[in-house]
Amino acid sequence: MDKVNLAEKFAKFSRHWDPKIIGALNGQHVKLVKFKGAFVWHHHDNEDELFLVVRGSFTMHLRDRSLNLNAGELVIVPRGIEHCPEAQHEVEVLLFEPASTVNTGSVPGALAVQAPEWI
Amino acid sequence: MDKVNLAEKFAKFSRHWDPKIIGALNGQHVKLVKFKGAFVWHHHDNEDELFLVVRGSFTMHLRDRSLNLNAGELVIVPRGIEHCPEAQHEVEVLLFEPASTVNTGSVPGALAVQAPEWI
Repeated sequence: MDKVNLAEKFAKFSRHWDPKIIGALNGQHVKLVKFKGAFVWHHHDNEDELFLVVRGSFTMHLRDRSLNLNAGELVIVPRGIEHCPEAQHEVEVLLFEPASTVNTGSVPGALAVQAPEWI
Repeated sequence: MDKVNLAEKFAKFSRHWDPKIIGALNGQHVKLVKFKGAFVWHHHDNEDELFLVVRGSFTMHLRDRSLNLNAGELVIVPRGIEHCPEAQHEVEVLLFEPASTVNTGSVPGALAVQAPEWI
């Protein structure tokens, strides 16, 4: 057990849409991700997913509206809800979700990360 | 579903050691807490607990050492591990933990909050 400095962990990687694990508790993972541009529309059948903006901003598109999130803001996307994150500039985000969560959820493809790396 | 601004939520309460719930996902709660001074030594039999410093700093005392945490740093205290948070100045902390978690864990008493308020 040791403390984790988010800025130090974010400095360890640069690839977008490639979540890294920084902690595990109660069957959940704490992950960090950087992204820019638009992801793919997807949902998670069995996992609720939390996004907390650490640096920058992004838009969480939902089918009926879009939420603009800035640093210090979070959104919880419940299981089953289609969503598509998009960032105009690179954003740093902390994720909290079940260890079973695959980033692209219902949508396989090149962006899917089945087993994120621990950093 | 809406976004949550941490600063706006922290502005809604001032009492120390009185966690407030701001989100729920996968059987877990996201809570905010403010504190100053020393808490009670305690552990949680069945819950791992994450502390992320949003503003300020505090020390997490463990039986064999102490960790100094500043804004942007987190620690995960595994179940069973005795801990005692202490802050010289008021600190704002985000918690991730199972919905079943009581703040004082193994130690009942005046500081125990059985059913935190949603804000």
